[in-house]
This record gives sequence, C-alpha cells and structure tokens, in this order.
Amino acid sequence: MFGSTKKKRIYLDHASGTPCSEAVFASMKQYFRDQAFNPGGIYKESLEVKSAIESVRENIAKIFKARKEEIYFVDGATESNNLAIIGAIRAWQRKNPEKQAHIITTKIEHAAVLEVCKYFEENNVLVTYLDVDECGYISLKELKESVTENTALVSIGYVNGEIGTIQDIRGVMKTVRHFRKHNNTVYPYVHSDAVQAINYVDEIGVPQLGIDLLTCNASKIYGPKKIGILFKKTGIELDPIIYGGNQEKGIRSGTENVPYIIGFDSALSETRDIYESESERLRLLQTYLENEIKKYDESINLNSIAENKIPNIVNITAPNLSHEELVIRLDAAGFMCSVKSACKAGEDGDSHVIKAISSANRPTGSLRISLGRTTTKKDCKEFMKSFKVIVDMMKETYDKYYS
Amino acid sequence: MFGSTKKKRIYLDHASGTPCSEAVFASMKQYFRDQAFNPGGIYKESLEVKSAIESVRENIAKIFKARKEEIYFVDGATESNNLAIIGAIRAWQRKNPEKQAHIITTKIEHAAVLEVCKYFEENNVLVTYLDVDECGYISLKELKESVTENTALVSIGYVNGEIGTIQDIRGVMKTVRHFRKHNNTVYPYVHSDAVQAINYVDEIGVPQLGIDLLTCNASKIYGPKKIGILFKKTGIELDPIIYGGNQEKGIRSGTENVPYIIGFDSALSETRDIYESESERLRLLQTYLENEIKKYDESINLNSIAENKIPNIVNITAPNLSHEELVIRLDAAGFMCSVKSACKAGEDGDSHVIKAISSANRPTGSLRISLGRTTTKKDCKEFMKSFKVIVDMMKETYDKYYS
Repeated sequence: MFGSTKKKRIYLDHASGTPCSEAVFASMKQYFRDQAFNPGGIYKESLEVKSAIESVRENIAKIFKARKEEIYFVDGATESNNLAIIGAIRAWQRKNPEKQAHIITTKIEHAAVLEVCKYFEENNVLVTYLDVDECGYISLKELKESVTENTALVSIGYVNGEIGTIQDIRGVMKTVRHFRKHNNTVYPYVHSDAVQAINYVDEIGVPQLGIDLLTCNASKIYGPKKIGILFKKTGIELDPIIYGGNQEKGIRSGTENVPYIIGFDSALSETRDIYESESERLRLLQTYLENEIKKYDESINLNSIAENKIPNIVNITAPNLSHEELVIRLDAAGFMCSVKSACKAGEDGDSHVIKAISSANRPTGSLRISLGRTTTKKDCKEFMKSFKVIVDMMKETYDKYYS
Repeated sequence: MFGSTKKKRIYLDHASGTPCSEAVFASMKQYFRDQAFNPGGIYKESLEVKSAIESVRENIAKIFKARKEEIYFVDGATESNNLAIIGAIRAWQRKNPEKQAHIITTKIEHAAVLEVCKYFEENNVLVTYLDVDECGYISLKELKESVTENTALVSIGYVNGEIGTIQDIRGVMKTVRHFRKHNNTVYPYVHSDAVQAINYVDEIGVPQLGIDLLTCNASKIYGPKKIGILFKKTGIELDPIIYGGNQEKGIRSGTENVPYIIGFDSALSETRDIYESESERLRLLQTYLENEIKKYDESINLNSIAENKIPNIVNITAPNLSHEELVIRLDAAGFMCSVKSACKAGEDGDSHVIKAISSANRPTGSLRISLGRTTTKKDCKEFMKSFKVIVDMMKETYDKYYS
C-alpha cells in the first residue's frame, strides 16, 4: 500500500502528488515489455502502438471538449507551462522583432510559470505580476488596465496549488476578448495551468472556458508523474523549445512515452468519472478540519478561504511557530503534509503564495494539508488529535523562551 | 513476450528501441504505487525517494567514471542533445553578445542534433556540417580546419544509429584540445550523443574520452523510453531550456521521473555487465548476415562497413528496389526491421546518413536490420530465407516492368 509501514502512515500531501491508481498501473504495464515498440516504426506492432496513442489522444480531447489535433503530449506540467509561455513569446517576437513583448501573470503562479517569466524579464521582456486579494483572487479590473498592444500572453493558473482558489478564467477571457475585439488582434493569447483543477473543478471544457492554451498533467490525478498535455487551440502559434524527430507535429520532438500516455488517459477518465462524488466527500472533511482548527485556536489563520475553492486543500498559518518544525513533528507522528508546494519545499523562505495573500506584518509560514481518494474522516480525526498535541507543545516551548 | 502473437514474430529493430528487461521492470514497479512520493517533500517517505535517486546517480556516475554531481537526469536523448547544444550556445552567446556563434557537427547526426542546428542556422548561428567517408568516418583534418575562435561547440555522435560506425572521439578531443591550448580558451566544448554506444562500446569513461558533454538514454539498453542523462563536466556552462522548481540543480526543472530514473540505473548496470559477451555473440550473427547477403547478391551494397562498428547493425542498399516495400513485405513475413532511424521513418525520402556516405548517383534507399539480446542464429537464418524469397520476387517484378 502507498506509504504502508508497520504503523499506519497517513498521507495528507495529495496536492504534491498521488500514486498511480491500480487501473492506471494495469493500463500501462504491457507497454513496458510486451508492447514496447517504437511508435515511429512502420511494421504492424509499431502501427498498433501509434494507433493506441491516437485513440488516447481522442479520448482526452473529448474530455476537454477539444479537437484531437489540439492535444499535444509533453513531459509533465513544467514542460507544458514552459512550452506555452516560451513558445508563445518566441513566436510573437519573430513576428514583432522591433517590439518589446509583454506577459501578464499573477504573483501566485507555480514556479514553472514564474521562473519562465523571470527568465524573460532578464531577456528584455516586460512582465506584469498581478496582485491577488486575501482569497487569492486577481482583480479583473487590474487585468484590464494591464493589457497593452504588446501583451503577447496572459498566463493565469486555474486553481492555486497551495490555497486551492479557483480563479475566474471565464472572467479573464471576457476581459481579454474585449481587448482583442476592440484592437482587432488575436493577441494576447491566454494560457492557464489547470493541473490542480482536473480533480475537482466542474468546467474543464476548453471551448466553455474560451482558453487558448491549457496545461494539465497526470501527477495529481493518480496517474504517472512526468507526462502532461498542452491543449493548443487551432491557429495558436507556438515555437517549439525542443527540436528533433518531429513527434507531436514538431511541437515536442522525442520518442513518445507510450506507457505514460496510456496511463494519462486512464487516470483522466477515472478522475472525471468520480470527481463530483469525490468533491462532495472531501468538502465535508475540509470543513471538518477548518472548523476543528478554528475551535482549537482562533489565532490560527486559515489561508484557504476563497468562496470558490477546491475541496481537498486546507492551508493554515499558526502564529509564532516554525512550520517546517510542525511538518517534521507531524511526520514523526505519522502524517505527511507540506509547508508549501513540493517544487519549492527544499528551498528556504516562506511561500510566495502566502506572502501574496497576506497583509503586511502578518506571519507567512504555512502548513498545507491536502486530502485525496484514500482520506477518511478517521484520518482527519487522528490528524487533529496529533496536531493539537504538537502545536500545544510547540506553543509551550515558544512561550517559555519568548514570553 | 515482446511481440508475441500466434506466429512467432522476429524483432530485428533493436536500434530503434528495446523492451524493458524483466529486472528493469521489477526495479521500477514499486515507485508507481507504494513508493510514488514526490522527492520534493520533507517527510520520511519523500526523503527516502530522494535518497534512492541520489544513490542511482552515484551508480551511474561510477559507470561513466564521472563525479556524481556531473550526472543530470533529463527526459530522453532528444532533450539531452537539445540541452547540450542549446544550453552551450546560449551560455556562449551571453558571454559573447557581439559575436556570431559557430557549431561544428556532422552530416550523419540524429535528428535531435541536426534539427537543433537547423534552428540555430535560422537564428544567426553558423553551422559546419562535416562530411563523412563511405564508412561514416569524419576527417580529423577537416575538423581541425573548421574550428575558429567563434566555435562554441563541437557535437559529434559516438556511434551512428543507422550504420553503426564508431567515431574516433579521442581523436576529436585531441584535435580540439590542441586548438584550446594554442588559443588559451575553454571553447569549443565537445558534446557526443552516445545513445547507441552504451550497449557495445568498450570505452564509456568520460575522463578517458576527455569529453565535456555526453548524452545517453535507456531506450536502447532495455530500459524505459523517455529517460536520459546528460553528463556535464564540472565547469562547463549551460543555460537551461526549461525553467521551474530548480530540480537537477536548475538544469532541468520539473518533478523527477522516479520510476524511470531507477529503471535507467538497472538497465545501465545490466547492460555493462554483459556488453562484452553480447558483443562477441552478436558479432558472429552480424558477420553471418553480411556474408549471406553478399553470397545471395553481390550487387547489394553493404552500408555498415566501418572497421570500427558496433556488432548489432547490418545496413544494406539493394539496387532498384523500394526499401519501404521491402520492410513492409518483411513485416508480412514476420520480421520487424526499418528503413532508417525510427524518428524519421514516417517521413518521405531516403536516409540522410546513407546519402552522406554515398557517392553521387548511387541509390540511397536502405534496410536496417538490428540485432539484440533475444536474437538467435535461427532468427538470422529464418530472416535470410524470407529475405531471399522477397527480394527475388521484387526483382522479378522490377525486371518485368523496367527491363
């Protein structure tokens, strides 16, 4: 079992990754050995593998209400985000060699978006980082005021992976479409990282969202880690970032990761089949944890407070405590949680997301508890029991030394 | 069994990919479910996964006689080649903003090298494509004459994947070191794609080769497809091509592909344990096929004729025949072969490698037969039997229509 040892360990870090489900692993297995043929070959077995990939592409397209040709397989969400942003900016720069490209994003994006923007800032591209309110929402008014004729791309995550806020992507699109129409231009393109959305959000249809570029991966939906897709609307121009054998119509060269592509499809179908019931189930556990934490100590700040949020994340700040220490003590007590997104967990400093939603002088350490398919009410009760004991003890130590 | 159906099918396309060995698959399995933790977490299970990755990195480093810190995990050979070339050129350009960068490569590289060079040619970088002789060898004299003070990178494949020629990498290094010393510079860096070398070549020690950058993947050594490494000698400067959570020390951001990293190690160890005996065994089969083909029809041209070549590739050109048709007819008879490298198999036109080794007016169609661990003498005999029948028949049809 995932994380099983003698004493039961409780995994509360689903937002940083989920194990492959049984069905996903079963679907991939044969492609490692019995059917491990290169889809680039021209004999029967290769053509069968190629056709399996294309049929998966069709399934995935259906789930996103996209056209088959608009789904590109890439190596994970980081690469998908990079391809969307770098690809769009380079294509724009080719067409506008005299102008300075402009990107609009937010202060609470994942590192795979923010670090690309930082790279471009160092290379003569202007970047606007939209502020967010205490819930993590951007202001559509600020977005509207930020768009210029040099804005090549707006990249705004659908769901924040630390505090769970569901951004108003339709509102973003309405604002951008208004600009496009009045200026008779196809720019700015709009990209959204939807990695944390697929598990729980109702609307993932790309025509309904109106989006141009969408990033998704399998790592949070009980599929393999290191396979992603980029939805690219027909007509949207991207330059590749990797060159070679022209797989994925030249957008991502390199032999296809067949087992993971098959597993992605299986994970996505399974997830969308149960997302409504899972959302309902987890919402109750989320509310339970929020209430219990507040009941225990009013001074603990709840960071995941958006009205529109996914049901599996609870993010809190306990005043005056080291949240790294808290995570380590919870680990010792049998609970796996995180201080911030796993991609940044090894680095020093508080989460950029919590900083962005916090008023000045507010402490910005954080503990993220994220629930998933195996999480039960009993797990949450046990968590609360240990959490209280540990925080009590940490507060006592703090009071002893600092009061 | 790999490719098993009712009638036994014989796989002779090992140079385009190999199935995972039993040991490799067994080594990866647990990391999909029971140990599918994000190595970026700070709890016990994540730290264990992180430590498994680092121990694999150490094993792999040992095999290449490199330092642990010099091995970077990337997503396959295409990405590794791209990262080496794009990364080196961009770093050079940053330091020499006024100069035009220069790349030296050969006419017979894999698409993952040639297409990157083509991209740079379209973006103000000078590229020299070295000629090769009829064996596929470059001329060290031509290399020497091509290096200039603007040469940022020399990228020459260790072993050609279509004709099996083992290039004299030590000779390349000697030439380049001579230039560096006389010009008191660290440039040009030297990169080599060693994907087809690992299975059979004696020397893969990077200090022995003297190389700066080496590309390798698991797809031809009975490991998973879509995991590669880049060896980057300490001190060599590369710009990343993908930005994000700073995994792999910022050289390749994105959550690690844990199962494939584990499988890579297992595949590499297994391969290097048996490469000498396998080389000897396959050399006999290679010679058998070469002799039989020549005995059958003197006019069939052998393309894989370098004195120094790997033992699993036989590449031929039969005059006046469509080699696509030949591969399709062999497929129908139960044999899986290819016309050229799988990355390019779907595209029209003859192989760029065969064109490069051929004198003017020589036909450049080709059939590549590539052997592997499961290939037996019996397989080769059966292949020859079918091959003769099919070519006889094709020649008859040709004679009927064109004589």
